Amino acid sequence: MTMRRLSRDEVHGLATRTLQAVGYGPRHVQAIADMLTTCQMDDCQSHGLFRLFMCAETTRTGRVDPQADPALTLDDSAVVRADAGGAISLLAVQAAMPHLVDRAKRFGVAALAVTRCYHFSALWPEVEQLTGHGLSALSMTPSHAWVAPAGGTRGALGTNPISFGWPRNGDPFVFDFATSAFARGEIELYRRENKPLPEGVALDANGQPTTDPEAAMDGAMCTFGSYKGSALSLMVELMAGPLIGDLTSLDSMAYAEGRPEAPYHGQILLAFDPDRLSGGAVADSDARAERLFAEIGGQGARLPSERRYAARARNAARGYVEISETLYQDLLALSS
Amino acid sequence: MTMRRLSRDEVHGLATRTLQAVGYGPRHVQAIADMLTTCQMDDCQSHGLFRLFMCAETTRTGRVDPQADPALTLDDSAVVRADAGGAISLLAVQAAMPHLVDRAKRFGVAALAVTRCYHFSALWPEVEQLTGHGLSALSMTPSHAWVAPAGGTRGALGTNPISFGWPRNGDPFVFDFATSAFARGEIELYRRENKPLPEGVALDANGQPTTDPEAAMDGAMCTFGSYKGSALSLMVELMAGPLIGDLTSLDSMAYAEGRPEAPYHGQILLAFDPDRLSGGAVADSDARAERLFAEIGGQGARLPSERRYAARARNAARGYVEISETLYQDLLALSS
Repeated sequence: MTMRRLSRDEVHGLATRTLQAVGYGPRHVQAIADMLTTCQMDDCQSHGLFRLFMCAETTRTGRVDPQADPALTLDDSAVVRADAGGAISLLAVQAAMPHLVDRAKRFGVAALAVTRCYHFSALWPEVEQLTGHGLSALSMTPSHAWVAPAGGTRGALGTNPISFGWPRNGDPFVFDFATSAFARGEIELYRRENKPLPEGVALDANGQPTTDPEAAMDGAMCTFGSYKGSALSLMVELMAGPLIGDLTSLDSMAYAEGRPEAPYHGQILLAFDPDRLSGGAVADSDARAERLFAEIGGQGARLPSERRYAARARNAARGYVEISETLYQDLLALSS
Repeated sequence: MTMRRLSRDEVHGLATRTLQAVGYGPRHVQAIADMLTTCQMDDCQSHGLFRLFMCAETTRTGRVDPQADPALTLDDSAVVRADAGGAISLLAVQAAMPHLVDRAKRFGVAALAVTRCYHFSALWPEVEQLTGHGLSALSMTPSHAWVAPAGGTRGALGTNPISFGWPRNGDPFVFDFATSAFARGEIELYRRENKPLPEGVALDANGQPTTDPEAAMDGAMCTFGSYKGSALSLMVELMAGPLIGDLTSLDSMAYAEGRPEAPYHGQILLAFDPDRLSGGAVADSDARAERLFAEIGGQGARLPSERRYAARARNAARGYVEISETLYQDLLALSS
């Protein structure tokens, strides 16, 4: 495969020009291009430049508002509400983030409810950003009802990612994973390569377990971790949906009416101030957390995100990332 | 097996007399007896009267303080801190609960950090109690380092339960599960019955996968859901340990120095006000959540806790629970 090298500026520029060309307003262009660049520089291919196709598709269907300014509701509580007004989520999160940080430091714990947004992005960059303020953070979002509950027969839950972060000197502890057993894109890859799926990953259209990726695309995915994973996925639905006054994955899928746009729903971000919560014992707490990380590393086990941080360091040192020439040409075509 | 019928009052009385006999102060007796009764009335055998043995053992080792009054730290933030002072956790939670509810309603989100407590109880009764105030709730606690991280070879994580609740008319949505693949008690049951464990549940003392329950007791348990479950377990360690200025499961195990007492560490409870978080759209939110529950039930899948609620209804209607005569006699012996 022929690869093309792109510097950070070239990645950001390509994203910017494409987003401008498909109609996003300047503030959205900046917020989305920043996010795609952050992901691409970590070799997070699925949430990097590749997502420009979805950004373009979502404007072509004509339902996303590519210009809407987010409307923040700020009061004297620990809750910040950011109404994205039918736009992509990222600008709303960006606009609300300083207020979330402020309230987490003031109240010890705070919540950001982002509502009425089209959502396609990884959660870890926002969680990592909060750790940069010395905060621990938790974020969740639903998607479309592609995932069957444990013991069920058809989609009712989203892929429902959970992302958590803990501040450290240097790279923070961060994980971000779907509560589905597989990502939907992974099943597509198996289909393209004509490979059978592992057991326990998917159901066919009749609700029966299947290893046929074609049948799985017409059926439903399973959650990871059986009943426990299914319960967690339902928690994501409730906390990032009804709790913040927004849609579940079932609602979101119904709303899309089969259009190939990004799912439309909400996102919750929680921020925790270790200083307030520990009663000022942050130094002791950091030492305890570091002993645990050291024990895990000492066993030869990896912490989540280690591979991503390694890619980040390598790409920063050499000054470029690589994407396939085919992807690059397809992206150029998007903006022409 | 000969069974004995006990009314709610008899369950509570038996717990009360036993706890008094082994030296707990009156406020602790009431808080612990209430919790054990709540669990026993739901046929939650592992966390009901059976736990009196651990309560007795933990006082015999002489390190729990069976009299200490909890010390609350209340300020103008959304964080309530309850220092249990080396006692069992339950009285501290009970004393702090009204303040947690107050702050959740005032700030939209609030946290209770319970610290320096011996902990042996299920998390769902406290989470369910918060749903009774119209709040959503999340609780976590570490334990002892019996569980290996994914890719690791020995215990570094606790069984680390997560409990979540969502208020409904009637029985709330509540789950409470360990992030270990098996509960430690389950492995003991397999050992007693000389049955091989399922694959993927445990490691032996050399860090190799094993299905031998004897070898597993000398080794470590695995987390549920592989790398994802392991990441969640680590989140529980951080949020219910260092974040609130208390011990990890590694620290707790070191602190116990091999004594057979309950683990000593902290617990975090988060409470969320759907009214504040949804911007006053609770009626819509409830309807969305109920549509999702109905879809899951309509597929023939169970919601967590359904079996427990069925036991509760049956025991309430007939006015008694059943425990084995052997357990009953052993419990009587505890207080004589």
